[in-house]
Amino acid sequence: MIQGTLVVHPIGWVESPLVDRAQAPLQGDEGAPDAWLVLDQAIGEGFRDLAIGTHLLVLTWLDRARRDVLTVHPRGDLSRPSTGVFLTRSPDRPNPIGLHRVSVLAIEGSRIKVSDLEALHGTPIVDVKPVLDPGKDR
Amino acid sequence: MIQGTLVVHPIGWVESPLVDRAQAPLQGDEGAPDAWLVLDQAIGEGFRDLAIGTHLLVLTWLDRARRDVLTVHPRGDLSRPSTGVFLTRSPDRPNPIGLHRVSVLAIEGSRIKVSDLEALHGTPIVDVKPVLDPGKDR
Repeated sequence: MIQGTLVVHPIGWVESPLVDRAQAPLQGDEGAPDAWLVLDQAIGEGFRDLAIGTHLLVLTWLDRARRDVLTVHPRGDLSRPSTGVFLTRSPDRPNPIGLHRVSVLAIEGSRIKVSDLEALHGTPIVDVKPVLDPGKDR
Repeated sequence: MIQGTLVVHPIGWVESPLVDRAQAPLQGDEGAPDAWLVLDQAIGEGFRDLAIGTHLLVLTWLDRARRDVLTVHPRGDLSRPSTGVFLTRSPDRPNPIGLHRVSVLAIEGSRIKVSDLEALHGTPIVDVKPVLDPGKDR
């Protein structure tokens, strides 16, 4: 089971003013910009009935992360003890899946504008889910 | 970008009394059982300092889901209008990544016992992240 591999087909990609990891905020609520989810038209029906104001969880593939890292200093702060990556939100991890909570600002065909997305321009999108409790989720 | 493929290597798998999709609850807080995360020892350092009581988000690969589905009736209820899968938590979706909020009940080497996991026995685990706000996350 553990030896197998799984193949993900991106459903879209992020269009953002963020192009450099050094400039990206560590979390979406720490000053991340608005960005566009540019979706593959082939999966457009999967967003049927999406409404402006909806809170979504966007799952990305952090393609500029390192996959050979198992411990990090949280938030890159060397004064903090190194910690297992699975206890942090570091992008560097064996399967660099990003999890981002956003809200929908605009919809233009297969392009969805969202708030507060800290993913870099060109980041592949692998899944989108609804927030189950919009007042609380993070 | 959209045409590419991404390769995920599972970091472990779920050991659970749930073996049949028909018997699995739809969400972890709807009567899901305790289960074990059986982790690959090669990534064990990634869980360094994990403590009992920690709230985690477990990302799985729902390997018994259908990937060719774009609309569903929410919660399988045919009386509800069909909706885009990305606006639901249906396991059937193009990249069937499951997102589960659990808390840690016990740790035995590379095995972690968690509460309220609705994933089926044998489900691959692809990532684990901390809950950022344990009082609120879901």
